[in-house]
Amino acid sequence: MSKTVIKGAVIVTLDDSRPDNFKGDIAVNGTVIEAITEYPQKFENGPFEKVIDGSSYIVMPGLVNTHGHAAMTLLRSYADDLPLKEWLEEKIWPIEGQMQAEDVYWGTKLAIAEMIKSGTTTFTDMYMYMDRVAEAADESGIRAVLSRGLIGIDGGLEGLTESEEFIKNWQGAANGRITVTLGPHAPYTCPPEFLKKVISLAEKTGTSLQIHLSETRGEVDSCLEEHGKTPPELLKELGIFNINTLAAHCVHLSDSDIDILAENGVNVAHNPGSNLKLGSGIAPVARMLDKGINVGIGTDGASSNNNLDMIEEMRLTALLSKGIEMNPTLLDAKTALKMSTITGAKALGIANTGILKEGYKADLIALRTDRPHLVPMHDPIANIVYSSAGADIDLVMVDGDILLENRKLKKMDEQDILNKAAECTNRLIRNGKDN
Amino acid sequence: MSKTVIKGAVIVTLDDSRPDNFKGDIAVNGTVIEAITEYPQKFENGPFEKVIDGSSYIVMPGLVNTHGHAAMTLLRSYADDLPLKEWLEEKIWPIEGQMQAEDVYWGTKLAIAEMIKSGTTTFTDMYMYMDRVAEAADESGIRAVLSRGLIGIDGGLEGLTESEEFIKNWQGAANGRITVTLGPHAPYTCPPEFLKKVISLAEKTGTSLQIHLSETRGEVDSCLEEHGKTPPELLKELGIFNINTLAAHCVHLSDSDIDILAENGVNVAHNPGSNLKLGSGIAPVARMLDKGINVGIGTDGASSNNNLDMIEEMRLTALLSKGIEMNPTLLDAKTALKMSTITGAKALGIANTGILKEGYKADLIALRTDRPHLVPMHDPIANIVYSSAGADIDLVMVDGDILLENRKLKKMDEQDILNKAAECTNRLIRNGKDN
Repeated sequence: MSKTVIKGAVIVTLDDSRPDNFKGDIAVNGTVIEAITEYPQKFENGPFEKVIDGSSYIVMPGLVNTHGHAAMTLLRSYADDLPLKEWLEEKIWPIEGQMQAEDVYWGTKLAIAEMIKSGTTTFTDMYMYMDRVAEAADESGIRAVLSRGLIGIDGGLEGLTESEEFIKNWQGAANGRITVTLGPHAPYTCPPEFLKKVISLAEKTGTSLQIHLSETRGEVDSCLEEHGKTPPELLKELGIFNINTLAAHCVHLSDSDIDILAENGVNVAHNPGSNLKLGSGIAPVARMLDKGINVGIGTDGASSNNNLDMIEEMRLTALLSKGIEMNPTLLDAKTALKMSTITGAKALGIANTGILKEGYKADLIALRTDRPHLVPMHDPIANIVYSSAGADIDLVMVDGDILLENRKLKKMDEQDILNKAAECTNRLIRNGKDN
Repeated sequence: MSKTVIKGAVIVTLDDSRPDNFKGDIAVNGTVIEAITEYPQKFENGPFEKVIDGSSYIVMPGLVNTHGHAAMTLLRSYADDLPLKEWLEEKIWPIEGQMQAEDVYWGTKLAIAEMIKSGTTTFTDMYMYMDRVAEAADESGIRAVLSRGLIGIDGGLEGLTESEEFIKNWQGAANGRITVTLGPHAPYTCPPEFLKKVISLAEKTGTSLQIHLSETRGEVDSCLEEHGKTPPELLKELGIFNINTLAAHCVHLSDSDIDILAENGVNVAHNPGSNLKLGSGIAPVARMLDKGINVGIGTDGASSNNNLDMIEEMRLTALLSKGIEMNPTLLDAKTALKMSTITGAKALGIANTGILKEGYKADLIALRTDRPHLVPMHDPIANIVYSSAGADIDLVMVDGDILLENRKLKKMDEQDILNKAAECTNRLIRNGKDN
């Protein structure tokens, strides 16, 4: 087993049994964290294959992106500032309709490169051609929770078959780095009868599921009109929440909707940037946290964000709650950081990650602090949440494997990915316009 | 005169007479832009002292930060997530009370280093020991609009004398890079009689002024109680708006307040990050723009933001308007970019900058685009506003002088600034605690 030690860093473990931050050494043995010492205690139990000088670093748990559609990177800045319907129907869907497996593969590679370079160690995806998504995740070394997106309006049985096949082939693959869940898109694209089939498949295969929920006002209104229930009420009635569920967005929730999510242990993926940019609104995060809901943070796809930078989303999450409630004490820095790490990991059902602790998975990142925007450092957690940027991430490790070092991707050919992604996107736009 | 040319860049001029973006060359002669060509036309009229390969760049106008308190960088992450009164009275003021000229100098240097490294070419400051602030701005090469902050509660005459002296010594200094304006802090710290003295001094010296206005709900309520008028109504009655005025924040405005600002040509500095973080609220930017008000963007001080990254504030400005009004077409990317450049320059009264145009000041920046989060680039302006980050800024030029090249500061010793700022801040905290 190869051993790596990072020496003399400021360490932010997010482990409640330790101080918020301290100077120390952190040693990684194989795929797990072997030791975390607090100075003056040093870790000398080598031999080490690699010794990293941590004197300019904050070392912390890797960021967990709980919602996205990775290959939509290919549509970044393709269509912005448009009414939602026009954006989807005239811009996004026609291009998505052209996408082939190869496009999804390179779009996902591009997304993973961007995510690793901004400190994300686990991402979630709901899209298509998922074998190629899993292949991209496997090769890159990142941890991934993957769902074949399911639309049930015209039957959708093919999607269920593919999902079952996908589970067989990839559940727990890559040393457990890959988790497969079911991905019914949303209540408005998956009729009740179809959702019941999804529940059966989840029960049969023992998988969790993720679904878009109450993202827009219009969607809630339609659900009330059609079913006489809000989307959470409808899903509860159908029994969806008997399956471990991750609900993305949850912008338009009544107090009783929030109670339903809390009582049923539903996990939420909050996507503040996407919700603002698409004009969906601002989710009631502080109220959800008050009720004890696991609220993780996500970027959503790059066509509605337009980047996959979790530090930005973490900062937005903290700032928005304070701003809309006009209360600066709401959602403090540590809460926002936990939502982006340990709470996200819990929401995805991934054990032994999200905090730094002996015996836990070595999913960690190091952030350079010797930069004007991070000086002084009265409070490392405040500097991470309120001042830092994706480009400050210097080192990324998943399962003890170094994926980024001195901002260089170690397991991906960045220039090749940029070229291939640009080729795919140019072809897609050309073909989209020809149709 | 020295000539520099950037060849083969994507150029975003923000000049309405040209396309939104095009590939071309941009030549700088001395302090001004000599030529901007559109390919296939190239610029060959050398000799050049420096030829820069622009093939991975977007070249655009430098960002204009219309509100801040630069030396408050020393208080970055010193106190966060607290009620406003406790934050100010128990944390910020006791430390500020300890600040000496040397602290302000190094805190300002730190702020300028951070701002240049994130693409800001002009900044505004309202603080104390302004001779040292001007010195820091002069040495660094950045463009600056500087005001001695004025509090009129206990007379405040010393501040007026110092302001007049400051105008004499620094107005138009450094080849016109430094502009001095008057800085009455706010209606609630400057009683009417004092504000009349400020108006007299402004008239005598021909200077503009900047003031905090309607930042918090509580401040508006107090003004109504004390004067029977909103802060804009009060300032209008006092005749402040006969002086060219930049009003910072403007979060809590009635429709009639907005009309007052519009009718009196008052310029506004919008500070979305600070307003959210302090729980002040969200300014009605879309309504102000509708009325034709010049709304620039600012970072405010680093103790309430907590960084000085204008790209973040630009993105927040666009996203917040869409989100709170639930309308994705509001405040499109180009509008946000103009607010951060040309509108900011207009708000500060600085001519011949804010767009790229022959004969205009060579205040420009280049942003690296060969990065995962900026690929593909269907729309360069959307990529700048929605996807880019401060760390993408590779080159910064003010008055034709290169201040940043390949992310290295050319006229500042970055490591020395980080060290000196840390020393100042450590001493301040120590002394603050002893008192």
